[in-house]
Amino acid sequence: MLAEIITIGDELLTGNTVDSNSAFIARGLTERGYWVRRITTVADDVDEIVAAVREALGRRPAVLVVAGGLGPTHDDVTMFAVSKALNRPMELREESLRLIADFYRKLYEEGFVDDPEINEARKKMAYLPKGAEALTNPVGAAPGAYILQDDVMIFVLPGMPREMKAMFEQEVLPRIGGRKFIQAKFLAEITDESKLAPILREALKRFNVRIHSSPKGFGRYIGIILFGESREEIDETVRFLEAHGIKLEDQRL
Amino acid sequence: MLAEIITIGDELLTGNTVDSNSAFIARGLTERGYWVRRITTVADDVDEIVAAVREALGRRPAVLVVAGGLGPTHDDVTMFAVSKALNRPMELREESLRLIADFYRKLYEEGFVDDPEINEARKKMAYLPKGAEALTNPVGAAPGAYILQDDVMIFVLPGMPREMKAMFEQEVLPRIGGRKFIQAKFLAEITDESKLAPILREALKRFNVRIHSSPKGFGRYIGIILFGESREEIDETVRFLEAHGIKLEDQRL
Repeated sequence: MLAEIITIGDELLTGNTVDSNSAFIARGLTERGYWVRRITTVADDVDEIVAAVREALGRRPAVLVVAGGLGPTHDDVTMFAVSKALNRPMELREESLRLIADFYRKLYEEGFVDDPEINEARKKMAYLPKGAEALTNPVGAAPGAYILQDDVMIFVLPGMPREMKAMFEQEVLPRIGGRKFIQAKFLAEITDESKLAPILREALKRFNVRIHSSPKGFGRYIGIILFGESREEIDETVRFLEAHGIKLEDQRL
Repeated sequence: MLAEIITIGDELLTGNTVDSNSAFIARGLTERGYWVRRITTVADDVDEIVAAVREALGRRPAVLVVAGGLGPTHDDVTMFAVSKALNRPMELREESLRLIADFYRKLYEEGFVDDPEINEARKKMAYLPKGAEALTNPVGAAPGAYILQDDVMIFVLPGMPREMKAMFEQEVLPRIGGRKFIQAKFLAEITDESKLAPILREALKRFNVRIHSSPKGFGRYIGIILFGESREEIDETVRFLEAHGIKLEDQRL
């Protein structure tokens, strides 16, 4: 099952913000058995977002997660752009508007904003693509959206990591199902990188795991990541690798 | 002048590694006056890389930076994939091979590898696309490549951050020229986000700067990034914003 991720934000394209959102989303999708095929980052620009969404849909993933640009400011254009990419009109959701109003009233009561009322900027967040399911934002104002179109499950999430993570866990994961995979990360000590490949190939044949290796600078260490459906499967693979001369040091992920 | 970045690596698509390389490259390009239009991340897979490179070239950027997948292991396929995307054969570079041999002999002498000799895995790194200029790797084995094709300056860099950064600074920046921009990052205290936009628009009219704003959670703070050609221009803009009621706190970038 293929998946794609699109992250949106000028700050990512100027290098002012490192895109940790896409890694978080990729990890969650991978652990559910999805293979993330591509991550695309574009600016807060309607045309750029429309193009990226349509191109991703053209590659027919099972899941497409779009994150960033749902807030109240003028450069938050993602929901409008996604609607346009999907040829769906926007529609005002009364329930979302009520939640947004509640949210700002609470911020006002706590002294975080000067004005408790709904204004155009805040109201904008209550517009979703026609036919979309509103996704609850447990820690912010902007709702997300879930749209099933041409068999692609499309999720539109906020860009602030705290909001994105909460919505991903509470609203996305229950919808995408899939088997839960476990990842474990090791540091392998090896002095000849050419000896590693045949041993890894043999392990892949014997055990129901996926293995990624990546060098950690030159010298004795190579990062090894094992994916399996259970800790037992991973432990078995580790014992096999160690029996074949690869010293593995467990790394906290 | 538009630019694009392609980062390559399975570990980025499984969420095991946060892609800090693209932020570093984006920052460098932005400071030289390039506008990074898109960042694409794909796996260590020839077809995926070929597709991403060709799509990026189709958008006609002035600069395309490709990073990751130049090492000696079997999943390092980037240079081959770039050659294929550009319809150029690979060719063995004797000078690069000599540098690679020197590098491994030194590693051997320092006790980091068991074998000082060139093997197929190591030799692979000496193949570059026909017509490419080899880029020196000041801290690693794999050379990068610079190719000018259809007026696009294409740079292929290693993925290990230490090597990528050294090559970007020593080999890429001198070739792309451009004006040096300065970025300064501030935290703005404001209690009504709707008041900010008109003041920023006025500042953009008056001063030769670019401004990015991004909310930092709900409440009183919004991140403001100013881009200008000199610190004076940025300081003038800051004074203007502060005179209009926006308190700015300087943030170390």
